[in-house]
Amino acid sequence: MKDTQQLAEQYRTALLKEVLPFWLRHSLDREEGGYFTCLDAGGAVYDTDKFLWLQGRETWLFSALYNRLEQRPEWLAADALGAEFLKSHGRNGEGDWYFALDRKGNPASGPWSIFSDCFVAMGLSRYALASGDEEAGQIARETYHRIWERKERLLLDPDPDVRAERPIREFPLSMILISLCLEFAWTLPEERIRRDCRIAVEEVMGLFLDRERMLVRECVAPDGSPVDSFEGRRVNPGHGVEAMWITIAGCDLLGDEETARLAMEVAPRQLEFGWDEELGGIFAFLDIEGRPPEQLEWDQKLWWAHLESIVTMLVCYNRTGSQEFLDWFERLHDYTWRHFPDPARGEWWGYLNRWGEVYLPIKGGKWKGCFHVPRGLWMAAEELERAGAQATGAQAGDVR
Amino acid sequence: MKDTQQLAEQYRTALLKEVLPFWLRHSLDREEGGYFTCLDAGGAVYDTDKFLWLQGRETWLFSALYNRLEQRPEWLAADALGAEFLKSHGRNGEGDWYFALDRKGNPASGPWSIFSDCFVAMGLSRYALASGDEEAGQIARETYHRIWERKERLLLDPDPDVRAERPIREFPLSMILISLCLEFAWTLPEERIRRDCRIAVEEVMGLFLDRERMLVRECVAPDGSPVDSFEGRRVNPGHGVEAMWITIAGCDLLGDEETARLAMEVAPRQLEFGWDEELGGIFAFLDIEGRPPEQLEWDQKLWWAHLESIVTMLVCYNRTGSQEFLDWFERLHDYTWRHFPDPARGEWWGYLNRWGEVYLPIKGGKWKGCFHVPRGLWMAAEELERAGAQATGAQAGDVR
Repeated sequence: MKDTQQLAEQYRTALLKEVLPFWLRHSLDREEGGYFTCLDAGGAVYDTDKFLWLQGRETWLFSALYNRLEQRPEWLAADALGAEFLKSHGRNGEGDWYFALDRKGNPASGPWSIFSDCFVAMGLSRYALASGDEEAGQIARETYHRIWERKERLLLDPDPDVRAERPIREFPLSMILISLCLEFAWTLPEERIRRDCRIAVEEVMGLFLDRERMLVRECVAPDGSPVDSFEGRRVNPGHGVEAMWITIAGCDLLGDEETARLAMEVAPRQLEFGWDEELGGIFAFLDIEGRPPEQLEWDQKLWWAHLESIVTMLVCYNRTGSQEFLDWFERLHDYTWRHFPDPARGEWWGYLNRWGEVYLPIKGGKWKGCFHVPRGLWMAAEELERAGAQATGAQAGDVR
Repeated sequence: MKDTQQLAEQYRTALLKEVLPFWLRHSLDREEGGYFTCLDAGGAVYDTDKFLWLQGRETWLFSALYNRLEQRPEWLAADALGAEFLKSHGRNGEGDWYFALDRKGNPASGPWSIFSDCFVAMGLSRYALASGDEEAGQIARETYHRIWERKERLLLDPDPDVRAERPIREFPLSMILISLCLEFAWTLPEERIRRDCRIAVEEVMGLFLDRERMLVRECVAPDGSPVDSFEGRRVNPGHGVEAMWITIAGCDLLGDEETARLAMEVAPRQLEFGWDEELGGIFAFLDIEGRPPEQLEWDQKLWWAHLESIVTMLVCYNRTGSQEFLDWFERLHDYTWRHFPDPARGEWWGYLNRWGEVYLPIKGGKWKGCFHVPRGLWMAAEELERAGAQATGAQAGDVR
């Protein structure tokens, strides 16, 4: 590998000099609270709605930075801005989190996404840890429990309009539930966390992993069998790779090295399947049978898939020292740094076309906020430092 | 204009020699009934699910051809294949139409889309007219009434999870309701049809038309005022143009020449707004304020938008003789014929990238079936013949 310290520095510098300043400068709504995430190339706000996936994630990010990287007051102030906004405006009377609020915090889109609950729970849990805010911790724990109840309800009683007749289960929730367990380990009983983490890891690696192809399916029948439909054939290669570092972290919590080894086998298979051999980068969606994919953005190259894959390859490399992971890291690193950064204006592009050209000239929107780029840069820097430290026998921290 | 007879011949030949044979050869499921619509470049079936939007539309198309163009037994047999499949399998116990069935007719996706009801109603109504099948007519009429009831329920009680807090109304339903009135005029009381058609025309031109910009918004507040959100700023230019020929036809039913004139003013404004001046073709989605659009396919060039715009420009030209419509027709005609047809294998491509290259190498899928290409070619041929006939004082038929 290239000089790991130099590489770590590259990731850390981008995080601290180019990415975090962008969000601190442009996303904080000091008047109404919460964050703007719809930011154009230079950071100007082009929509003021506040999407709770992204409010929760930005709260998480600044809390985690404060909690794990450095106790900078500006980071604590930034996370408080999101946490207080969420606490004041985010839930309906039953305790479910809206999908979107308007700038002032009035509900704009109802609580239809369980991922709103998940990302807010992660944000408030980490905020409680960073700030000592008891109320945030209480709301986070309530939300954690509601998420598991809601998941059970979804299993017993799926949306009758949509899929009662040919039920499917969707992979992303199981992945996020592992993250949730990791985020709540500090504040919930160990037994409960281990039980929940075991369930989620078994879902990812048992239900959704197609063992024959070693690929993660986005949707399967409730018993894990494949469904021959657009949904059932859908593969989101970057999602599958991201899920593997999260699964490995869950396995560490569980002390389950065997499943972690399986995850390390799966991760590069996802990249082999999802890599655009002609033009580089990871396709957004593919059909597992090679049939025409349904998604009209199937060939786009998305920021999060590349950053999460870099992290996964480094995590796998640090556990095994295997050259395969290093080769993939270098391939991903080269593509990613050639196409996504925008150092002059800060933060990275999110949406590239197949040729690696900027497709949407924005830094944030309804689905991209202050999350994958800084988390990915941070984790990659830590893993690279660890790689260097392992070479010299020392031990680095863990940002998860 | 170029020789209208020659142009009419070009459209009619493509319809009869290149497009209809493709669907007759590849889409009829003679074993299980209904139609395959997921067909690759050469017509091979790559997914066997039967999506009711497309089942209803193909039933409509073959029924309408038989009914209005020529009584070919193969067309009547083709529409019966769809109609019988729909009658046997399409509805749940309450009379709502599923979104998808599997190949054999088992429900695969529930009745979540009111457009399933609309397109099936249109298909069965026209089939009843073509075949004399009383049962199909009865089911079609029941569905017609349920659609209007369901629309009222949606207005009074919008999906509480999604948008109770900032309610919006969506334009496409109002447009399709005009078509529905036109399709049911033969079998429902004139008074009812006129009432319903008036409601739908007033929604399109009153609620959704932004009079200041002369553009149709996809979503507005219930009172028609603009909403400053991704949804509220969304323009689908091709949709807006398509809506204008449908509105003009509705105005003819109502004898409302004033609104028809307004529709003829709006149609070219939509094209000015939606045309890609750099590379040609109509963008799929734009933000009315020029902000970054949400849709990851915003710059794609889609088959239906181009065909429906050709039809609209010809309809407007035939009513006014105005050069503006002719200029747009010629621009659309040139782009469309250069990029969409695939004469060797039949049917047209549907999804082009911004550069006009084939993006998805398919002829049909979950959203593209046997509908816009043949209907557009047919209507354009009729309008072109009418243009020629007007020049010589004769009168052509009307395929609507």
